[in-house]
Amino acid sequence: MFVGISVLLDFTGVIETGFHNAKKWEDLLEQAIEIGKMKKLSISSHQFENVQKPEASLYPDCVKGGATAFALLAESHISVHTWPELGSIVIDIFTCGNEMNLPALIEFFKGTIPHTNLNLIQIQRGDNPE
Amino acid sequence: MFVGISVLLDFTGVIETGFHNAKKWEDLLEQAIEIGKMKKLSISSHQFENVQKPEASLYPDCVKGGATAFALLAESHISVHTWPELGSIVIDIFTCGNEMNLPALIEFFKGTIPHTNLNLIQIQRGDNPE
Repeated sequence: MFVGISVLLDFTGVIETGFHNAKKWEDLLEQAIEIGKMKKLSISSHQFENVQKPEASLYPDCVKGGATAFALLAESHISVHTWPELGSIVIDIFTCGNEMNLPALIEFFKGTIPHTNLNLIQIQRGDNPE
Repeated sequence: MFVGISVLLDFTGVIETGFHNAKKWEDLLEQAIEIGKMKKLSISSHQFENVQKPEASLYPDCVKGGATAFALLAESHISVHTWPELGSIVIDIFTCGNEMNLPALIEFFKGTIPHTNLNLIQIQRGDNPE
């Protein structure tokens, strides 16, 4: 039995620095939740420092000034991770709700984030082949 | 260019009620982060009420006593959603770190959660076909 749907959005060519800012993503997630007709439980975010010598970091691939934001929802979650140096933004939507508007939510992200390419994967979750 | 890896774990047959408890999942995520050699930024969770008349809820499929837990990491995130009435637990791991131990993390979840079936999908993220 399926329990929900994962939508994985991989944006590339996102060069506007505003879209790599954690506080902006908190605002965008608030808007997205309203547009998707979802119920927020909490939103959190983190701004990574712009490390000049990433080789000195424990996690060189993750700490070059990107942002992470996360919304915990009654209908599950939305996560955002950004890599300004690569122009990449990766968004995961996981939903188990019947009443939310998933297409509107996806269109909001597609229309709001200036990008050159988008890979979208949709996966039904919780399937049990037995 | 790939920016990270998503691992989607869909467990079924999880009938032990402890694995549908949000506080237990906060503890399990702490253990998982240590085993995976990751760096925690924050952990949050939510316990849904055990609604007796789910049809009275705005979100009937999401509020039957399940748990949600989320770890924000330097290497990205781990999310957990559970459905006790279906025996389902869905875990998403998203990582961009080189130094973490993803196989050990997956083995930890497989070995810790008593289940009858597991679907595992691994997806490279941020690919740009252009």
